[in-house]
Amino acid sequence: MPSSLPLIKADSQEGLLNNRAGTDLTPLFYPQNIAVIGVSHNKVGGIKYIVAHEVSGFSGGLYPINPNYQEIDGRRIYPSLEDPDVPDIDLAIIAVPAPNVPDVVRDCHRKGVKFAIIFSSGFEESGRDDLDRELRAAIAEGPTRIVGPNCLGVFNQESRVNFYYAMSFDLPGNISFVSQSGGTTARLLVALQSMGIGLQNAVSIGNSIDVSIGEMLLYFKDDPKTGLIVLYMENMEKEKGPEFLAALQATTRVKPVIIWKGGQTDVGIKAAKSHTGGLAGSYRIWQAALRQYGVIVAENFEEMRDFAAAMSIHPPLPRGNRVGIVLSGGGIGVEFADAICKQGLEVPELTAETQAKLAEYIPDINSSFRNPVDLGEYGYVPTYYGQALKAIAEDANVDAILTVREPERSTWFENSLQLTDFDGQNLVVLKSATEVGKPIFMNLSPNSELPEDYAKRYNFRKRLMLEDGIPTIDYTPHAAKLLKQMAAYQRYLSQFE
Amino acid sequence: MPSSLPLIKADSQEGLLNNRAGTDLTPLFYPQNIAVIGVSHNKVGGIKYIVAHEVSGFSGGLYPINPNYQEIDGRRIYPSLEDPDVPDIDLAIIAVPAPNVPDVVRDCHRKGVKFAIIFSSGFEESGRDDLDRELRAAIAEGPTRIVGPNCLGVFNQESRVNFYYAMSFDLPGNISFVSQSGGTTARLLVALQSMGIGLQNAVSIGNSIDVSIGEMLLYFKDDPKTGLIVLYMENMEKEKGPEFLAALQATTRVKPVIIWKGGQTDVGIKAAKSHTGGLAGSYRIWQAALRQYGVIVAENFEEMRDFAAAMSIHPPLPRGNRVGIVLSGGGIGVEFADAICKQGLEVPELTAETQAKLAEYIPDINSSFRNPVDLGEYGYVPTYYGQALKAIAEDANVDAILTVREPERSTWFENSLQLTDFDGQNLVVLKSATEVGKPIFMNLSPNSELPEDYAKRYNFRKRLMLEDGIPTIDYTPHAAKLLKQMAAYQRYLSQFE
Repeated sequence: MPSSLPLIKADSQEGLLNNRAGTDLTPLFYPQNIAVIGVSHNKVGGIKYIVAHEVSGFSGGLYPINPNYQEIDGRRIYPSLEDPDVPDIDLAIIAVPAPNVPDVVRDCHRKGVKFAIIFSSGFEESGRDDLDRELRAAIAEGPTRIVGPNCLGVFNQESRVNFYYAMSFDLPGNISFVSQSGGTTARLLVALQSMGIGLQNAVSIGNSIDVSIGEMLLYFKDDPKTGLIVLYMENMEKEKGPEFLAALQATTRVKPVIIWKGGQTDVGIKAAKSHTGGLAGSYRIWQAALRQYGVIVAENFEEMRDFAAAMSIHPPLPRGNRVGIVLSGGGIGVEFADAICKQGLEVPELTAETQAKLAEYIPDINSSFRNPVDLGEYGYVPTYYGQALKAIAEDANVDAILTVREPERSTWFENSLQLTDFDGQNLVVLKSATEVGKPIFMNLSPNSELPEDYAKRYNFRKRLMLEDGIPTIDYTPHAAKLLKQMAAYQRYLSQFE
Repeated sequence: MPSSLPLIKADSQEGLLNNRAGTDLTPLFYPQNIAVIGVSHNKVGGIKYIVAHEVSGFSGGLYPINPNYQEIDGRRIYPSLEDPDVPDIDLAIIAVPAPNVPDVVRDCHRKGVKFAIIFSSGFEESGRDDLDRELRAAIAEGPTRIVGPNCLGVFNQESRVNFYYAMSFDLPGNISFVSQSGGTTARLLVALQSMGIGLQNAVSIGNSIDVSIGEMLLYFKDDPKTGLIVLYMENMEKEKGPEFLAALQATTRVKPVIIWKGGQTDVGIKAAKSHTGGLAGSYRIWQAALRQYGVIVAENFEEMRDFAAAMSIHPPLPRGNRVGIVLSGGGIGVEFADAICKQGLEVPELTAETQAKLAEYIPDINSSFRNPVDLGEYGYVPTYYGQALKAIAEDANVDAILTVREPERSTWFENSLQLTDFDGQNLVVLKSATEVGKPIFMNLSPNSELPEDYAKRYNFRKRLMLEDGIPTIDYTPHAAKLLKQMAAYQRYLSQFE
């Protein structure tokens, strides 16, 4: 049956790509059988994909392929896809030297393989436009849809299709991530998973010469398990631009999309060219286009990580730009006001009613009830803090809150305030304040770099995020940038209401 | 003797401040005897200063004063400065309610107290211009120089004069820090000390209505124990502006000065006004003035912390704006190139000679020797990495280096590369590369948030900073901003060569 499949012929590559783009991507993320082409004893080659799936507990069939081996470490190795014991294959992973890739793609077409991930690099990104052209021609000859080349492949939390040895599977989270950098894919996975946040899907898509970022967007838009889409991209072939923007426009109406675009400067664009090939284009044009479609734009890895973690717990979107700053301390109030206002957000005075309430709740010792609100020493007491926080959240002048708790000082506060479970009490009053329905952003005000103090922040952060649903971003400029863009996204969405 | 001291009379406050400004500040930082006025059983009052000095092992005399007590927890309490058992006092700490402060200042004058720190708040920053005027008048009546009001006071690593319970004294470091926010003073102290970096002096100067920031600058300029001056400031009285700028101009020629100016936006300026009083002025004018005098400007707490830690180990200043980026990975190279170029630095191509050397040292597998330099997988091997790093540092096109090591993955590298003491080997090759005499900045590329991985980074960071003298800043925009300003400072200094 495989070799009798009709091979698609197309007049132009562009037309073909458009024709091919209707493919259902489900088998890529939920493959029944996986073939890995190019396994050997070399541990950095294809064999690592076999090991990763064995470790993760992938329940489908695994078919390692290499004509030069019969067995590696007790595993049967198949000579080719044509071997009668190799069943229908949903996903092939190709890890052979670049010049051999086009022929392996043809093997996949012949076999009727639905998707192939090309791990191999050495194409356009290495200046080998000849091999790139040859590969594109081979792809155009048949039905197998290609992810890559020059990529790691795909991860799905449920099917356990996988590319990375250290993956976690049992974490809450509904992020689907598409990245043109394998290293960045791994970095974001590790960062989020180590915070206790899971990914639903991850795709290292490399040069993306066949399956496009736009197709991924549309698939994740309709995927009920995906609640947030994150993209790292470096380039886009000119002819795929309109398709991508149309997909983006359709997607942001349904789910938030965060994009970090690498290649924002001349040198960055040049570096991107030698990393993933293609054309990077002017960053200004990119930014304008992304913002026009309601995208939350990250400028670097740390912003992408912070924005993704925060949005993964789906805080309410602010109805406007007005931020209430709630903390104890004068200098830090000045600092936060500066950071918020620099992003074009507002720090309005609270209503007279709220100020009166605060004066009732909080003794007027070194405190200030305008905005930034300095609760003074009493602001450290969870009951006082909770009352004040809720009153400020309910203020008609306030769309969002930025506040501070310092878990690294919890023990000190417990001793000096004669309290037990200081962190737990704060979690309770914070959770209660979220009921007002406005976003509350937390800053843990890291001071001590000691590992034991870091651990206190880490544990409290996880509970805040996962138990209270409170985004926790310790770098105020990032919090401000995200709040600003969440408000813009809310305005964008309101067009369609 | 004290009451017979002639009281200085001045025609105008401005003239007086200028006349007074010649005082030698040494007794403030190295006091023989300290009086604390306003101790009581209340633990947040003046008694905490007594406790802090007892804990720190201050070797001079401590004289707690309150007419209403004879003894607190076994300590003798003196009724007043006039008590015959109270000797000459270099430093008084005043912790009484604001309305009583002017009279206590007069007591200090009468006694001939050299310096008094006014801990009490409730003056101009609280809208009490009447009390502020009264206090200024009292200060003008006599010789005692005043730090504050509305401040914590001073810290000196050697004399152990002190204001904070959790201070460390035996750390290397030569930073002198002056801050208009007590909270920010404590935050920077904790941050630096927890990284293993000591401060020589710290001054929480509050409203700074008498002893000025300019006087502090000039004192630290001539202090042989100070190698770096860091300022957090919110405001400056108009008439003190010229004095401050003159002091700055004299100081930056001798030692680097880092300044974070709080109150950069309208709301921030308003918040600063209610925090430390005074006039904040336009941030643009501030920035321009500070840059003109070779100051390294920080925009927020995190930049101040990162810049201070990096500059405290005195890396060489770059002779220009050209940065060599040395790492393994494509996406991260794009990211770093963007971050560097966004600050107006350059990422030039390496010379043909260096590229040839690199091609000799490093196998050409997924590597790129232009700039950013992607060393590929071989870049993880310390010996290869060290050779490459040194060659790039020696490149005539390169003024500074930004590079990456990942201590959180050390164990993994040790296993896969069959090496022992991976971190130690990296420290050796990095130290060797610093011999070229160009600044090498490290980024530890934090991915995992797990406390155990954090601890690996923490330990490696300390060794890099303290053993190798290599500044380690993990947020690339901060590293880029500092390198840019170090190059500008180098240009500034070269005028005077």
